[in-house]
Amino acid sequence: MKATVYQGNKTFSVIEREMETPSKGEVRIKVAYSGVCGTDVHIYHGMMDKRVNVPVTIGHEMSGIIDAIGEGVSDFSVGEKVVVRPLDDRGVKPSDKGFNHICEDLKFIGIDSPGSMQQYWNVPAFTLHKLKQETDLKLAALIEPLAVAVHDVRLSGLVAGETAVVLGGGPIGLLVALVAKETGADVIVSEVNENRILKARELGLNAVNPTKIDLIGYVQERTKGRKADVVFEVAGVQPALDVMTEIAGIRGRILMVAIHGQKREVDLFKFFWKELKLIGARVYEKEDYEKAIALITANELPFEEMITDVQPLSNIQQVFENIDNNPDGMKVLMDCQA
Amino acid sequence: MKATVYQGNKTFSVIEREMETPSKGEVRIKVAYSGVCGTDVHIYHGMMDKRVNVPVTIGHEMSGIIDAIGEGVSDFSVGEKVVVRPLDDRGVKPSDKGFNHICEDLKFIGIDSPGSMQQYWNVPAFTLHKLKQETDLKLAALIEPLAVAVHDVRLSGLVAGETAVVLGGGPIGLLVALVAKETGADVIVSEVNENRILKARELGLNAVNPTKIDLIGYVQERTKGRKADVVFEVAGVQPALDVMTEIAGIRGRILMVAIHGQKREVDLFKFFWKELKLIGARVYEKEDYEKAIALITANELPFEEMITDVQPLSNIQQVFENIDNNPDGMKVLMDCQA
Ligand SMILES: NC(=O)c1ccc[n+]([C@@H]2O[C@H](COP(=O)([O-])OP(=O)(O)OC[C@H]3O[C@@H](n4cnc5c(N)ncnc54)[C@H](O)[C@@H]3O)[C@@H](O)[C@H]2O)c1
Ligand SMILES: NC(=O)c1ccc[n+]([C@@H]2O[C@H](COP(=O)([O-])OP(=O)(O)OC[C@H]3O[C@@H](n4cnc5c(N)ncnc54)[C@H](O)[C@@H]3O)[C@@H](O)[C@H]2O)c1
Ligand SMILES: [Zn+2]
Ligand SMILES: [Zn+2]
Repeated sequence: MKATVYQGNKTFSVIEREMETPSKGEVRIKVAYSGVCGTDVHIYHGMMDKRVNVPVTIGHEMSGIIDAIGEGVSDFSVGEKVVVRPLDDRGVKPSDKGFNHICEDLKFIGIDSPGSMQQYWNVPAFTLHKLKQETDLKLAALIEPLAVAVHDVRLSGLVAGETAVVLGGGPIGLLVALVAKETGADVIVSEVNENRILKARELGLNAVNPTKIDLIGYVQERTKGRKADVVFEVAGVQPALDVMTEIAGIRGRILMVAIHGQKREVDLFKFFWKELKLIGARVYEKEDYEKAIALITANELPFEEMITDVQPLSNIQQVFENIDNNPDGMKVLMDCQA
Repeated sequence: MKATVYQGNKTFSVIEREMETPSKGEVRIKVAYSGVCGTDVHIYHGMMDKRVNVPVTIGHEMSGIIDAIGEGVSDFSVGEKVVVRPLDDRGVKPSDKGFNHICEDLKFIGIDSPGSMQQYWNVPAFTLHKLKQETDLKLAALIEPLAVAVHDVRLSGLVAGETAVVLGGGPIGLLVALVAKETGADVIVSEVNENRILKARELGLNAVNPTKIDLIGYVQERTKGRKADVVFEVAGVQPALDVMTEIAGIRGRILMVAIHGQKREVDLFKFFWKELKLIGARVYEKEDYEKAIALITANELPFEEMITDVQPLSNIQQVFENIDNNPDGMKVLMDCQA
C-alpha cells in the first residue's frame, strides 16, 4: 500500500509499506479521499512540531470503505462506506462533565496519532460513522469540516428570521455560512480576498468586502437597526475581533470558531452594554457528525463547488507547496487510491 | 424640603427648595435611604461629566414611601413602601427585541435625569416596585444593587452543586456571592483587599487573596479538577481577565459584570479550547427586582453587615470625600430624612 509521511521541515515522502491487520476493536479502512485542512498546512509549516511526532502520516478529513474488521468489532462489516470522527476520547474523566469531544486528555487522530493520508488506515471502531450506500465519497470527505460548521451553528442557537454575519470566507467560514443559511437565517459573509468573495457568491451566498464597504453601516441598514443576532468569528484576525462587537445587536451571540494563538484585544464594554454572549466552539459532537452526514447525503447545498482540486496521493508535496502559493483555493482533496 | 446637588468639580451643595406636585403619571416619594454606588463616586470624580448634566441631584439606590400621586396613577396609594427601578425605557424600539432594560435609548434615572439624594423625589409610576409593609427601609436601599447580583446569577444559569468564583469582593461582588451561595453552589470570593476579605468572611463567604495563594491551583484542587462552572468578573482589572479563562472549566460560563472602559486582552484560545461562554450582564429586569425584594423582605442573608455607614443627607460632601480615603468600606447609605 501507498502512504504519505510528513518528515518535518516542509517535507513529505511517499512510501510503499505492508497493510496492517486491524487490532482488537479496530477496523482497516480503504481510504477514498482525504481533504487538506488548515491544520495540516500549519503542521507542514512546522508550527505544530512540538505536538506532532514526526515522521508521521497526517490527515483527518476523509471518507472510505471498510476493508477489514478486527476482533470484537460487531457493528460494522466489510464494504460499508464510513467516515471517521477523529476524536480519541478514551482519556475522558468525570471532571470533563460528559463533554467528551473537548475532554482534557482528548487525542486528535491525524495530529496526535497517524492520519488518513494513506491508502489504508487502521482506526478504532468507536470513531466510525456509517454513510448510506448512495453517499458520494468525494463529498463525504467534507463531512469533518462540515460537522465543525454544524456544531458552530447549533451552539449559536440561530433560527429562521435572524441575521448572521460570518467573518472570514475560508473553507470553514463558507461551510458555516451554508449551514446558517439553511436554517432560514439571512446570512452575510465578510471576506477580504476578492476571489474568495467570488467563490462565496458562486455558492449563492451574500458576500461583502469590509475593506471596500462600511460593514457596520451595511449590517445596521440591512437589519433596520437590529444588527446581527449571531456573528461567527472565523477569520482569526484582530480586525474581525474589532468589528464583531460593533455589528452584534442587543443580546447578540458571537461564536468564537477561529483559533487565536495569542491574547487579543476585545471590547468588553460592549459585552456588558448590549449583554452580548461569546461562545467558544471546538470541533463537533456525535449529533453534529450525523447532521453533516445527512446534509452531504441529501446533497442539496453546493458542496461540489467547495472542492477546488483533487490530486493523487503521490502529489502531496506539490499540493502543500501550491496551497502556499494560492490563497484563493478552497478545499483540496487527495485521492488516496490514485 | 432638603436636596443635594452635584455641582461638578467634586462638589456637592445641600439646598432647601419647594416640594413639587407630581406630574401626570408620576408619584412623589418621601425618600427613606439612598445608597452611594460606585457610579456615584465616578460621577463625583468627574469621570461622567459628558453624560451628567450639572447641576443635578444624583442617586439611584433607594427606598421610600409614596407621598403624593399624580394624575392617571391608579395602582399606588399614599403611604405605600416602594423602591424605584431606575430605568426609563420609554425610548424602546422594535430593534431592541424586547430587551427593554438595555434598550439602545435607555435613560438611567439618577444619572441621565434627577436622582434620589433628596428628601422628596418625583418619578414615573412605571419605575415603582411595591414593598411589603414589613420590609425594612434601610435594607430596602440595597434592592437596586442586589437586583444587579440576582440578574448576574440568573444569567449565569448557576445551579446547586456547581462551583462559582467571584473575582472582586466589592459591594457588587459580595452581593453576587451571597446570591450565588443561596442557589446551593460552592462559592469562592477572590479579593485583594484584606479588609474586604475579612468583610466577606463576616458574611459567611469563603474568601481568598489571589496575591497570597495560587488561585488557579486552589480552584483546581477544591473542584477535583473540574474547575469553576461559573466565574463572575466583578473586579474590573486585567489580572481578573487573565485568571478568569484559567479557572473556568470545560463549558464554563464567565459573567462580565465589571465595566471595562477600554479594550482589554482576553485569551480567546481558551474560549475555543474549553468551549467557554462569556456572558455580558447589565443592570436587571423586572423579575430580578422582584427576587431582590423577596430576598430583602425575607432577610435571611446577612444584608445588615453590607451597610457600613449611615449618614444624614447634609453630610454628602464629607461622605464622598471619606469614600475616597476608605477603600475598605462597603455600602454607605444617606438617611434622606435626617
Ligand atoms: N473551532 C474549530 O474546531 C475549528 C475547526 C477548524 C478550523 N478552525 C479555525 O477556523 C478559522 C478558519 O479556518 P479556515 O480553514 O477557513 O481558514 P482560512 O485562513 O482559510 O480562512 C480565513 C479567512 O478570513 C479571511 N480574512 C482575513 N482578514 C479578514 C477580515 N478582516 N475580515 C474578514 N475576513 C478576513 C481570509 O482572507 C480567509 O479567507 C481558523 O482560525 C481555523 O484555525 C476552528
Ligand atoms: N453590570 C452592571 O450592571 C453593573 C452594575 C454595578 C456595577 N458594575 C460594575 O461592577 C464592578 C464592581 O462594582 P463594585 O461597586 O463592587 O466595585 P469595587 O471597585 O468596589 O469592587 C471591585 C473589587 O475588586 C477588587 N480587586 C481589584 N483587583 C483584583 C484582583 N486582581 N482580583 C480580585 N479582586 C480584585 C478590589 O479590591 C475591589 O474590592 C465595577 O466594574 C462596576 O462598574 C456593573
Ligand atoms: Zn481540520
Ligand atoms: Zn448603582
